[in-house]
Amino acid sequence: MSWLPTLQTSTPEEGYELAIKLSRMAVKKTQPDDDARARMRPEYANDADSLIASSHVVAVNFQTVALANNHWRE
Amino acid sequence: MSWLPTLQTSTPEEGYELAIKLSRMAVKKTQPDDDARARMRPEYANDADSLIASSHVVAVNFQTVALANNHWRE
Amino acid sequence: MSWLPTLQTSTPEEGYELAIKLSRMAVKKTQPDDDARARMRPEYANDADSLIASSHVVAVNFQTVALANNHWRE
Amino acid sequence: MSWLPTLQTSTPEEGYELAIKLSRMAVKKTQPDDDARARMRPEYANDADSLIASSHVVAVNFQTVALANNHWRE
Amino acid sequence: MSWLPTLQTSTPEEGYELAIKLSRMAVKKTQPDDDARARMRPEYANDADSLIASSHVVAVNFQTVALANNHWRE
Amino acid sequence: MSWLPTLQTSTPEEGYELAIKLSRMAVKKTQPDDDARARMRPEYANDADSLIASSHVVAVNFQTVALANNHWRE
Repeated sequence: MSWLPTLQTSTPEEGYELAIKLSRMAVKKTQPDDDARARMRPEYANDADSLIASSHVVAVNFQTVALANNHWRE
Repeated sequence: MSWLPTLQTSTPEEGYELAIKLSRMAVKKTQPDDDARARMRPEYANDADSLIASSHVVAVNFQTVALANNHWRE
Repeated sequence: MSWLPTLQTSTPEEGYELAIKLSRMAVKKTQPDDDARARMRPEYANDADSLIASSHVVAVNFQTVALANNHWRE
Repeated sequence: MSWLPTLQTSTPEEGYELAIKLSRMAVKKTQPDDDARARMRPEYANDADSLIASSHVVAVNFQTVALANNHWRE
Repeated sequence: MSWLPTLQTSTPEEGYELAIKLSRMAVKKTQPDDDARARMRPEYANDADSLIASSHVVAVNFQTVALANNHWRE
Repeated sequence: MSWLPTLQTSTPEEGYELAIKLSRMAVKKTQPDDDARARMRPEYANDADSLIASSHVVAVNFQTVALANNHWRE
């Protein structure tokens, strides 16, 4: 089973969750060691600039997912 | 009730508020501790570069919301 | 009266001004204290990297406004 | 006469020049003092990261200008 | 054989892999020395901000690839 | 002869090369001195964050070039 079978989601909220998943997967592909990523977590989770940068990546991925879903227009 | 039931808003201003909400939600998902986020607030709210970076994220999310609303064209 | 009644403008130059307004409003929403923002101004207005970062945000918002106006095509 | 009468240009190269103009104008609007901007120039013109950041802003504005010109498709 | 014969992929997951490839190729074009790139790897793979920045680039390239594939809509 | 006669290319790979050219040209326009740019090269070519930032700019320009070529869809 693929970790990314489709970009289509039922709701905007699920689409946002997918955007977060897309953002994290790129980090995982560059640093596959789970322990290494866990060690960095307290660092960036308590740094405002890192959190803003993370939110930026989610925003870019959410653009992609939203477009893939025609913005969930009714 | 979902925190993000739809990307459609009645007005551009409401769309801008939604873009801010989207920007903050990604931060909250990475740092769910309300106190931790509150502690960082004075830091980035008084740092010009952090504020510019925050505005950048809102701008990206506003692109998404504006497109979802066909730019509120009359 | 809304601060953002519409994304439509008569001219590209007015659209650019609106992009600046959108960029500044996100800063204001995060740091509503006028004095705090004024104190930061000399800092970022004399820092090349801050100015470039500001211009980046305007560029993103101008994309949105230009699209909303069909790029003011004649 | 407006500094930005139109986003349409005759050629891609002129469109690229317009993207540079758009990038610089946002800096000028934030720091209107010509001398202050001139003082910063040697600093960022000799800093690789500042130059990359400047190129990034031009790239975003060029997206806008290129779209406004239908990518100068023949 | 080109390293980039097409932007079309069969699945979203393959598209994501292509976005990673596009992100890395630009680095390789600027720093073609394999050893130099290998030396930098432990540095950025253990730096949260570098990882977030890498994920950002993948997100931008994934927008391009997803659009090229009409978001793999069924 | 213009350095940018068209955004159309025959293949995705040529499009990617054009994106690199667009990214470098903005640097050249800001710092026209060839020697100054050459002096900075070892610095950013051995700095992971600079390389990631460079790749980001290429990604943005590649979006533009890919769109101009209708993503080289067959």
